[in-house]
Amino acid sequence: MTPIKIDHIAVVVDDLDSALKFWQEALGLPIGGKEHNEHEEVEIAFLPIGEGRVELLQPITETSGIAKYLAKRGPGMHHLCLAVESIDSALADLADKGIEIIQPAPRTREDGTRYAFVHPKATGGVMVELYEMVK
Amino acid sequence: MTPIKIDHIAVVVDDLDSALKFWQEALGLPIGGKEHNEHEEVEIAFLPIGEGRVELLQPITETSGIAKYLAKRGPGMHHLCLAVESIDSALADLADKGIEIIQPAPRTREDGTRYAFVHPKATGGVMVELYEMVK
Repeated sequence: MTPIKIDHIAVVVDDLDSALKFWQEALGLPIGGKEHNEHEEVEIAFLPIGEGRVELLQPITETSGIAKYLAKRGPGMHHLCLAVESIDSALADLADKGIEIIQPAPRTREDGTRYAFVHPKATGGVMVELYEMVK
Repeated sequence: MTPIKIDHIAVVVDDLDSALKFWQEALGLPIGGKEHNEHEEVEIAFLPIGEGRVELLQPITETSGIAKYLAKRGPGMHHLCLAVESIDSALADLADKGIEIIQPAPRTREDGTRYAFVHPKATGGVMVELYEMVK
């Protein structure tokens, strides 16, 4: 179930507009989309680069996991998302190898995409998202 | 000077062998190379994935920047490296836009590759390496 590519790097920021001054204006990356996600309590900007993208996340409440992360750790890289062919076989494979998954079953986003997070304890300190590539 | 791709994610780990249990054994990524870098005081493993790679860094002294980062922040993602066509034009461009570069001029590695780091203050919290792609 070897992952196919780095799908995205998620970066938690204090302020989306000020972060875009670097990522979009100075670096010149295009904005692939913006999303106001009430469920995860974040404002998101996606910036495509090569076969992947940078995702900037700004908390919109003080109660979300992302807001707590920001308060505790400061702004910076939050998780690394790797694309896999099949999320079910990836999770079964990791479970066989004794790797701790944060949710035992994959979650499904509103757009139908399926994903799961691997606990940083299992990876050497990185929150790793596995994401099933859309065919 | 829009960057071309995510070249690598550098991850600081306590112990390379134990991190490889996840990245290589469980995830199935191949090892592209290992390097004992006396100058930067780290042991490195490169794991190619898609057009980029994951770089695992284990400090081999207690005095390096990486060792201090690990002591202060714990293991996790250290920097994000983006590939650019020309490091000179990228740095000139960022300087024009008032972005703070950690070194004013690019550095050159022993293998001849050229790079520079952008200060996390300028990026929204991420240490960004710009790396000139080898033609």
